[in-house]
Amino acid sequence: MSKEITSRQQDYSQWYNDLVIKGGLADYSAVRGCMVIKPYGFALWEEMRDVLDQMFKDTGHENAYFPLFIPKSFLSKEAAHVEGFAKECAVVTHYRLKNDPDGGGIIVDPEAKLEEELIVRPTSETIIWNTYKTWIQSYRDLPLLINQWANIVRWEMRTRLFLRTTEFLWQEGHTAHATADEAITEVKLMLGIYADFVENYMAVPVVRGVKSASERFAGAIDTYCIEAMMQDGKALQAGTSHFLGQNFAKAFDVKFSDKQNKLDYVWATSWGVSTRLVGALVMAHGDDDGLILPPRIAPIQVVVVPIYKGDDRKDLLDAKGKEIAAALKKAGIRVKFDHNDNNRPGWKFAEYEKKGVPIRVALGLRDLENHSVEIARRDTKEKKNISQDGLVEYIEALLDEIQQAMYQKALLFRDAHITRADSWEEFEQLLDEKGGFISAHWDGTSETEEAIKEKLKATIRCIPLDNPAEDGLCIYSGRPSKERVLFARAY
Amino acid sequence: MSKEITSRQQDYSQWYNDLVIKGGLADYSAVRGCMVIKPYGFALWEEMRDVLDQMFKDTGHENAYFPLFIPKSFLSKEAAHVEGFAKECAVVTHYRLKNDPDGGGIIVDPEAKLEEELIVRPTSETIIWNTYKTWIQSYRDLPLLINQWANIVRWEMRTRLFLRTTEFLWQEGHTAHATADEAITEVKLMLGIYADFVENYMAVPVVRGVKSASERFAGAIDTYCIEAMMQDGKALQAGTSHFLGQNFAKAFDVKFSDKQNKLDYVWATSWGVSTRLVGALVMAHGDDDGLILPPRIAPIQVVVVPIYKGDDRKDLLDAKGKEIAAALKKAGIRVKFDHNDNNRPGWKFAEYEKKGVPIRVALGLRDLENHSVEIARRDTKEKKNISQDGLVEYIEALLDEIQQAMYQKALLFRDAHITRADSWEEFEQLLDEKGGFISAHWDGTSETEEAIKEKLKATIRCIPLDNPAEDGLCIYSGRPSKERVLFARAY
Repeated sequence: MSKEITSRQQDYSQWYNDLVIKGGLADYSAVRGCMVIKPYGFALWEEMRDVLDQMFKDTGHENAYFPLFIPKSFLSKEAAHVEGFAKECAVVTHYRLKNDPDGGGIIVDPEAKLEEELIVRPTSETIIWNTYKTWIQSYRDLPLLINQWANIVRWEMRTRLFLRTTEFLWQEGHTAHATADEAITEVKLMLGIYADFVENYMAVPVVRGVKSASERFAGAIDTYCIEAMMQDGKALQAGTSHFLGQNFAKAFDVKFSDKQNKLDYVWATSWGVSTRLVGALVMAHGDDDGLILPPRIAPIQVVVVPIYKGDDRKDLLDAKGKEIAAALKKAGIRVKFDHNDNNRPGWKFAEYEKKGVPIRVALGLRDLENHSVEIARRDTKEKKNISQDGLVEYIEALLDEIQQAMYQKALLFRDAHITRADSWEEFEQLLDEKGGFISAHWDGTSETEEAIKEKLKATIRCIPLDNPAEDGLCIYSGRPSKERVLFARAY
Repeated sequence: MSKEITSRQQDYSQWYNDLVIKGGLADYSAVRGCMVIKPYGFALWEEMRDVLDQMFKDTGHENAYFPLFIPKSFLSKEAAHVEGFAKECAVVTHYRLKNDPDGGGIIVDPEAKLEEELIVRPTSETIIWNTYKTWIQSYRDLPLLINQWANIVRWEMRTRLFLRTTEFLWQEGHTAHATADEAITEVKLMLGIYADFVENYMAVPVVRGVKSASERFAGAIDTYCIEAMMQDGKALQAGTSHFLGQNFAKAFDVKFSDKQNKLDYVWATSWGVSTRLVGALVMAHGDDDGLILPPRIAPIQVVVVPIYKGDDRKDLLDAKGKEIAAALKKAGIRVKFDHNDNNRPGWKFAEYEKKGVPIRVALGLRDLENHSVEIARRDTKEKKNISQDGLVEYIEALLDEIQQAMYQKALLFRDAHITRADSWEEFEQLLDEKGGFISAHWDGTSETEEAIKEKLKATIRCIPLDNPAEDGLCIYSGRPSKERVLFARAY
């Protein structure tokens, strides 16, 4: 066990921070609540981004870019939206600094006050729908399927690396449609893409569902979501896809004429995932030795480490290591050959374990003689000596196997931590002792939801999409209920 | 000639705006000085970004991400830097809005005033070097070769789409080195990459040079640049690479211990190109019918347009068009098959001309019989009927030919517009009547440079890197000079 990393049992929260920082993903910055994404962390985000971006493009979406700043008045145009987003945000009030005439360094120039303050975007519905007004006139302009990769600022009081930062990176899709049905189909399509990505690339199982009214996006008619479970049993909302109805079209007066030349407001969706997903990845898979990254998005899939014994046949070890790395690279595997002789093999082993590299290939003097290598899996820690013949094929298969095994392990854990509760006592006990998702009856009111949140800090994560009808009584109020919903404490 | 587009002769500036807007690259936004990059413009930027990103990675650079906000005090730490960047910038002073108790909508909450104002990054040297302080201790941590793709805000008074906008997208490289020599080698390497990219992908020839002292980046020891020439003879700075010496290391106290355990300040570089390059591309190649995009970065390299005559064999035209597009796509060509029957062929031809698609393949009923297609080149407007046999190879070769021809045309124009001036009268006349770059002697003083700028709005674009020594007399002051420099009016 790595001495640098706090164990999960000792302090789960510190363990998470250790993995993020010592795994080389991110660092604190000088700006309150903002982080620096380090090269290894950014390479991971790039892998994730590129897969998602291709999925968006394959389903007909195009990227565009809208301004960072939103005029203050825009936020007020959609009544629910302003309630949700106007509170904690960064406000630009001035556009110039000047030298302090009293010699106090540079100060804000009071004469350079903006007539209307600008908000650093907390989300872009308003500025985008204000633009769509000029882009959409007829049904021929629809559907409009646009995505943007951007930075976002929300003035969070309590921040945590990746999970909740004042500035974060994300993508936000904003689509416009001629009918409600088409918009709802889009909302579900994107939820499916998110679920596919999180499950099949991040190896994290998710529950697909719909949010209760009080957990909806500010301005949405319906918010669909995917919910993942972390190793401490808490939920993490991994992505959301919103059906916005005609709310933003009405707020920004965006109408289109249909084939019969009849004017109507446009139907909207928006959907997004963010760098928060990196936090989910860390927490879903990591162990007390560091990160464990799923092969399909690991920036380094295989590290090749030669084991030098002084200068003894060092050139042969280097040549063979290089040859192996080149063969793997040629097969499209992201490989690193670490022949840096400043660091000892033991240090390197620990380093790549911390970084979660799925497979380590070690090559020593005996391997040269035996035409073998030692393979170590990061996820199970298994080691095996295998022949250099057919190594590429072996590693290709092993990467697939690790990807599947990581998913299966997370799925087993997740499924073992979805529990039914049929009384308030059971509910409370499960939350405190077992954690995870609790499937329970709810009377459908926001009052009950609020009361449960107050008392136990648990929220309704979602009403699962494939939820069976079941008559029952609300866990809290005892009133009748038609279906169970999933409760959990959440990040 | 497209009626929608103002001709260059009539109004060069309006022509540029028409190309940008009607070519589908960008649009004005509701936020002063900020633009919306439309899907086609963003796809172009993505092509450019991806090529550059690969070039950076191939030379050992890694991407990372640093905060959008910079504490006001950071800007003051490097004396020259604050002069250059603290003036026109967006200042965040508050972090909350609230409902106006007097019913005036939402207002800035006066109680949510930041203790220290935050500046929206106008460039990131300060926040990055503040971070490097914690990342660099020893020579083993060097070189540190980091790049970031980010949005930048500079409060420009006069803005123009792509060329000068309040917010723009760019990349900024920030590297740290153990020696001055190594840093200077990096500065030149990156200048070479920029020149390679702009010449061989954007098909725009550049002059590589060094800036005079007064045109240097605020905080640099030396600024290297590439200068391109637009069709109106004005210069456009297409990229810069700065040798920052130890200025930022001293400002942020970043020291490293060398192999002898001696402490020294770290040597720095920074280098960047931005969405401004899109403006350069538009102005260097466009004509009165629209954009002309070089094949290597065109989002659509080939458009296939079936020419319907009512419903006559429409299915055959569609099948053949689809087949041709699929064959091109298979060969790695970015192709669009436009079988939308809402628009007539003539409208489509004009549309793709405006968008600057390098090659159009038209397919009519006679082509079905003759097993042919009509090929039209966007750059020369030449049309040719050719056989469908060997079409992919023909188009591959033609894309290369267009790429070369566009570069050669721009090079001929550029070279014909670099003129020597040996007297003030000649200099003035050339500037007003011919434009372009004027090669003239300069006494090396900032006073002369300033006086020429005042009188004629011409600036020293650069001292070319391969400049021959030549004794002469300054065009303005008559004082002795050792070499010619390039003057021009510039964007």
